[in-house]
Amino acid sequence: MPSNTARVAGRHFLQIPGPTPVPDRILRAMDMPVLDHRGPEFQKLGRRVLENVKTVFKTRAPVIIYPASGTGAWEAGLSNCLSPGDKVLMYETGHFATLWRNMAVKLALDPVFIGSDWRQGADPEAIGAALAEDKAHAIKAVCVVHNETSTGCVSPIAKVRKAIDQANHPALLLVDTISSLASIDYRHDEWGVDVTVAGSQKGLMLPPGLSFNAVSDKALAAAKASRSPKLFWSWEEMLPANRAGYFPYTPATNLLYGLDAAIDMLHEEGLENVFARHDRHAAATRAAVEAWGLEVLCRVPEHYSSSLTAVLVPDGHDADAFRARALEAFDISLGTGLTKLAGKVFRIGHLGDTNDLTILGALAGVEMGLELAGIPHKKGGVAAAMAHFTAAARSALPRAAE
Amino acid sequence: MPSNTARVAGRHFLQIPGPTPVPDRILRAMDMPVLDHRGPEFQKLGRRVLENVKTVFKTRAPVIIYPASGTGAWEAGLSNCLSPGDKVLMYETGHFATLWRNMAVKLALDPVFIGSDWRQGADPEAIGAALAEDKAHAIKAVCVVHNETSTGCVSPIAKVRKAIDQANHPALLLVDTISSLASIDYRHDEWGVDVTVAGSQKGLMLPPGLSFNAVSDKALAAAKASRSPKLFWSWEEMLPANRAGYFPYTPATNLLYGLDAAIDMLHEEGLENVFARHDRHAAATRAAVEAWGLEVLCRVPEHYSSSLTAVLVPDGHDADAFRARALEAFDISLGTGLTKLAGKVFRIGHLGDTNDLTILGALAGVEMGLELAGIPHKKGGVAAAMAHFTAAARSALPRAAE
Amino acid sequence: MPSNTARVAGRHFLQIPGPTPVPDRILRAMDMPVLDHRGPEFQKLGRRVLENVKTVFKTRAPVIIYPASGTGAWEAGLSNCLSPGDKVLMYETGHFATLWRNMAVKLALDPVFIGSDWRQGADPEAIGAALAEDKAHAIKAVCVVHNETSTGCVSPIAKVRKAIDQANHPALLLVDTISSLASIDYRHDEWGVDVTVAGSQKGLMLPPGLSFNAVSDKALAAAKASRSPKLFWSWEEMLPANRAGYFPYTPATNLLYGLDAAIDMLHEEGLENVFARHDRHAAATRAAVEAWGLEVLCRVPEHYSSSLTAVLVPDGHDADAFRARALEAFDISLGTGLTKLAGKVFRIGHLGDTNDLTILGALAGVEMGLELAGIPHKKGGVAAAMAHFTAAARSALPRAAE
Amino acid sequence: MPSNTARVAGRHFLQIPGPTPVPDRILRAMDMPVLDHRGPEFQKLGRRVLENVKTVFKTRAPVIIYPASGTGAWEAGLSNCLSPGDKVLMYETGHFATLWRNMAVKLALDPVFIGSDWRQGADPEAIGAALAEDKAHAIKAVCVVHNETSTGCVSPIAKVRKAIDQANHPALLLVDTISSLASIDYRHDEWGVDVTVAGSQKGLMLPPGLSFNAVSDKALAAAKASRSPKLFWSWEEMLPANRAGYFPYTPATNLLYGLDAAIDMLHEEGLENVFARHDRHAAATRAAVEAWGLEVLCRVPEHYSSSLTAVLVPDGHDADAFRARALEAFDISLGTGLTKLAGKVFRIGHLGDTNDLTILGALAGVEMGLELAGIPHKKGGVAAAMAHFTAAARSALPRAAE
Repeated sequence: MPSNTARVAGRHFLQIPGPTPVPDRILRAMDMPVLDHRGPEFQKLGRRVLENVKTVFKTRAPVIIYPASGTGAWEAGLSNCLSPGDKVLMYETGHFATLWRNMAVKLALDPVFIGSDWRQGADPEAIGAALAEDKAHAIKAVCVVHNETSTGCVSPIAKVRKAIDQANHPALLLVDTISSLASIDYRHDEWGVDVTVAGSQKGLMLPPGLSFNAVSDKALAAAKASRSPKLFWSWEEMLPANRAGYFPYTPATNLLYGLDAAIDMLHEEGLENVFARHDRHAAATRAAVEAWGLEVLCRVPEHYSSSLTAVLVPDGHDADAFRARALEAFDISLGTGLTKLAGKVFRIGHLGDTNDLTILGALAGVEMGLELAGIPHKKGGVAAAMAHFTAAARSALPRAAE
Repeated sequence: MPSNTARVAGRHFLQIPGPTPVPDRILRAMDMPVLDHRGPEFQKLGRRVLENVKTVFKTRAPVIIYPASGTGAWEAGLSNCLSPGDKVLMYETGHFATLWRNMAVKLALDPVFIGSDWRQGADPEAIGAALAEDKAHAIKAVCVVHNETSTGCVSPIAKVRKAIDQANHPALLLVDTISSLASIDYRHDEWGVDVTVAGSQKGLMLPPGLSFNAVSDKALAAAKASRSPKLFWSWEEMLPANRAGYFPYTPATNLLYGLDAAIDMLHEEGLENVFARHDRHAAATRAAVEAWGLEVLCRVPEHYSSSLTAVLVPDGHDADAFRARALEAFDISLGTGLTKLAGKVFRIGHLGDTNDLTILGALAGVEMGLELAGIPHKKGGVAAAMAHFTAAARSALPRAAE
Repeated sequence: MPSNTARVAGRHFLQIPGPTPVPDRILRAMDMPVLDHRGPEFQKLGRRVLENVKTVFKTRAPVIIYPASGTGAWEAGLSNCLSPGDKVLMYETGHFATLWRNMAVKLALDPVFIGSDWRQGADPEAIGAALAEDKAHAIKAVCVVHNETSTGCVSPIAKVRKAIDQANHPALLLVDTISSLASIDYRHDEWGVDVTVAGSQKGLMLPPGLSFNAVSDKALAAAKASRSPKLFWSWEEMLPANRAGYFPYTPATNLLYGLDAAIDMLHEEGLENVFARHDRHAAATRAAVEAWGLEVLCRVPEHYSSSLTAVLVPDGHDADAFRARALEAFDISLGTGLTKLAGKVFRIGHLGDTNDLTILGALAGVEMGLELAGIPHKKGGVAAAMAHFTAAARSALPRAAE
Repeated sequence: MPSNTARVAGRHFLQIPGPTPVPDRILRAMDMPVLDHRGPEFQKLGRRVLENVKTVFKTRAPVIIYPASGTGAWEAGLSNCLSPGDKVLMYETGHFATLWRNMAVKLALDPVFIGSDWRQGADPEAIGAALAEDKAHAIKAVCVVHNETSTGCVSPIAKVRKAIDQANHPALLLVDTISSLASIDYRHDEWGVDVTVAGSQKGLMLPPGLSFNAVSDKALAAAKASRSPKLFWSWEEMLPANRAGYFPYTPATNLLYGLDAAIDMLHEEGLENVFARHDRHAAATRAAVEAWGLEVLCRVPEHYSSSLTAVLVPDGHDADAFRARALEAFDISLGTGLTKLAGKVFRIGHLGDTNDLTILGALAGVEMGLELAGIPHKKGGVAAAMAHFTAAARSALPRAAE
């Protein structure tokens, strides 16, 4: 935390869709002496996190852990199983899908980009149709963002899998779960994903600095043939070392301490409970948005995100001016509208380690900020969210409540 | 934090009237190696905190720092300047004033206790009258609690001083500021207080474990004559060592690191801003209570506390059952009703390092908890508090808001 | 740690006989949000530490935990089971025994002080003789310091017990274990101690701020009759609250988190292993002193302390000038000579959380400091300690060493 | 730190040549809430570290900070200013130079590798000769490791620069300073280096997870022409965002907090003092090696490393068995011999945040470990190092020593 700034009392409300608030237990776990990453103590840690992290992806396949933030894991996914010139089918769910596609161009791949209005998740039928047309199997991979962080829309990965299968197409399936993993139900094995890309700073409740590739056998086979230049991202360098609990180059040891704690915490709460909590916070947030008379960007209810909610501001109003006002007046950070959504939406992050009262404090900050910024809206958003939480609490505590 | 409990997500809302949430910066300052408390590095620290802590009491007099929690500082105040058999005039503002009086009995003093209904601060006139009657000056000290933590009522210390002066009585004035110091305006020198008793775990934003006596010349003179047995609490042991930056026995070094940081933080924010923030949070809380149709325990508006608000629950309802429900459902700790207020009130702490959105989250927890617990109330408390904060923010940001 | 000092690289060598280096795990355990000390989470912690701390004292009796440093626990011991005017037999083992005796005077007790040359522990025969003479049983308590921190001499408590029993005297036995508990074998129940006084900042590896009274049934019975004024220290206030896992006034919550961790750590290592480790470090230190041609202050080998070693400097040389030089040149804090030992001895603390290499670094700092300060000595102290450790390691690893 | 291991008392001696012990102040600086990396608070931090880190490289050129460990910065250096097929001149100083060369192959570059016996730094004449022969200027870059971590040999970068200039060759100069930056004098601008590669976990005293490229104008110009596929490592993505204090993708925020503190600490000590301290520790270590009758791997005294010392064990003895024994008996981690040095050398790290007594503890661990492991040696290594430190301390404290 920068030290030479004027003192603002209390705890900042970090309500962006990641990085998320890091629990004290995780920060303290990382606040420990560095180990020799070639020694026997480290090996125990390495083995434990490499094995246990699989449960979060719901996979038995290897999960590669990079000492790098999430953009690196995107690059790793593409560069390990594809080669310059390869055609890849990508889906324009929003800003981050567009960045991933731009990366594919920089990596000399040949992306086909299915367009969209940024207000829904990927359409499995469109993917299926594109694959069905590709008789020659020129398309080597399908890339989909599970939870598009710029829009708050979730793509139905199980259905995408089905569409690929129905097209009888051999393309790999690469999925970005950066803002969904450990927040929204996700199943690497069951859904037949070949490469799952993830990062530490969202549902995993860690600071940024680790990223992940969960890798299927099919992806590993494809990697053997890849001609993309790489070393840092190379699975082939990683996997033999990982088998012994080590890493081929210096890992981000202290973040691994944190990951070790984070996995424990997710299982102590129970992954299903974690997902239900995110669902509850998202539903309460949407209830608030509805009460305000504002519009949720995502217009397909089945695609609503439980990690964040993007909210449209009325025409003629500036979402960023509102955000600045809320930050100044109430010390709350909200997500900005990205590229073509700039100024038009703000995003409320409700993922990671949080609880009902914090969400209500955040929604209060939004409601008061709307007022201060002169954004037309009705009051009652917080009240609507409270009604949602009260009902949820009542049904969760039936015996005690009688 | 106990480690082997089921995982509850997010940050606990600690809304008791102390201990208060400790800022990360203070916790990290304390999370440092212990120093040799007889060495030169410690001496710099000792001199700095012993000098700087005076600014928080608004005094030039010595402030004694005990490695002990607040009850000890009560005992220190009484046992240093009084002797067994001495008559002391004490004022029954509530539970804590009663405990202090009970302590006086245990210390073989002879307390005269002015009764009250626990719904207001001390009455300077009653004190003046009692002193006026004491022609023989048998009363050696007047003891008043500045902010009665059990009731949320503030006693007007400047007026108490005036009443003593008008009675032309030589009694010492001892004031307990445990839940007011660094939260509510307080002036040791200007108000002519002889012993100010304080603790670390409220407005000072520290964990419990330090307590204080600010000591006037008159109190020091009285101490010379004291026959109360003591050593740990003895000012006479402390002061010579303190002058050199040291302590006569082992100090709570790491809490002193925290105190050093806390004083800096109070001055970075500005003590007047700290008080204004507490006033704002208290006013918003009372606005919520009023909207709920509930009654604030304190019935003298000039005595309203900016540290906490005690709220009466309607007859036939149990405040503690409500508190338990709120804790279970929303992970919020509220203060209980003490002794004769047990079950009749709950207390909302709004002191220490907090901000508007946290207060709103807390008030939402109260409002939803009232609903779950079946306490009769109207909705709209949070909305009323939001209106208060919005207005305050608007007036604080005039230029930006245009 | 004071922030605005010139940067000195590396970790300070804190080799005073307490406070001792606090392990990271304990500092991190304390670096956590404060709990409501009246709530159910706290209760679990309270019950756990109050029960588990008994194992460290080797007792089934209640152990009282004060939110105060060790001097307070001395006062608590005396003021709970004695009354003004009571005669107490105390033994002048050194500076701290003298302070305890001075405290007894301040508390209006009537101490009888058996003198000594400060170079050995208490003599059980002298105690037995004094008691035998006290036919009227005017002596109400015998007070002995187990490990005299100013001299590095240990008193044989089991033999003191035997002497009391042989004299058939009903006096209580109060023992100060401030610098021995969790470092040197100690058995409250087996040795029939009535009050064991202890502190957090030595063998318990915590910062200062907690202190302890382990209390026998006989002591509790005596407490009922005590007429000493007190409240903060009163066992009678503490015990009923403790039975429920709570405290009668605000406890030092974060230090209790640390205590919880410290007890776990002592048992993970094993108390017998902890004692053996301290014995080894003490023996290696004495080997170094002997090699330097200097004299250990303690002249009774059976009384050698495993917590610290006090070393005499040759006549005409100033131990404090040497200490200052070592601190300046090598960033090592050593203990000073106290009162009548001032300038004549320095003390090497080797207690708490440390290991062989740290002790060797410390001894190297002493040896080099002696050289820089011009204290006559022979080289080879570190080499002698290394020989001791090498032999110990060899015998600890018999199979691996073949 | 792994939690479920048997308790070993005291502080581990981490004497590998990196990662190095992280100072408490840095760990605590990182143990803080994550900021919104798109917000104004972050921007202040971003601007500060991006500007201040330049002082450590002694450059005015931009320094790129990657949220990745050091191997990534190697890849970044190569892939930004070179293209597939480009010839690069690399120097086989040891294991890490070999790994860098292997990376060049993976990145489809065409390395020319000047061989060596791994017992000295790079030879500027050999580099000059190779460049002189390259009349066609096919060689696009010269890559040299400043401090070869596997051998403890330093390459004379200023002389390499001169050799390039004398050959009148336009090749870029890329230098790996991973284990030298902030430990051994280094001057990016003065020595005309084009890309300096560095990492966080050595002289910068941070955990692993950040790495660096300091980039000259010439390197930036070359980058414009590069055809290597990349995005995460792309300078062109980084620099525009950095100019505003931001990063193009999520940075490792908490490590940046640490970097901010680390830079402050380096300047508080003074970079020249930091280098002198490393020189002193290295000289004392070599004095110990000489006293043991063992051989330092580096055989060119001007190439001795101040970061680490690699020590040859006598033929027929296993350095790794010795290391395992020292770890088991004395809780010290030493560096292993890598690839062709496996079993033949051990490496003593003496870089980062350490002091004389810690180095002596470490050397004692080595000397006792040699004894336990049956490695032929003479005693007296620690004594020789102590003599070195005593002399250094005496000359540093002239006035006080009189």
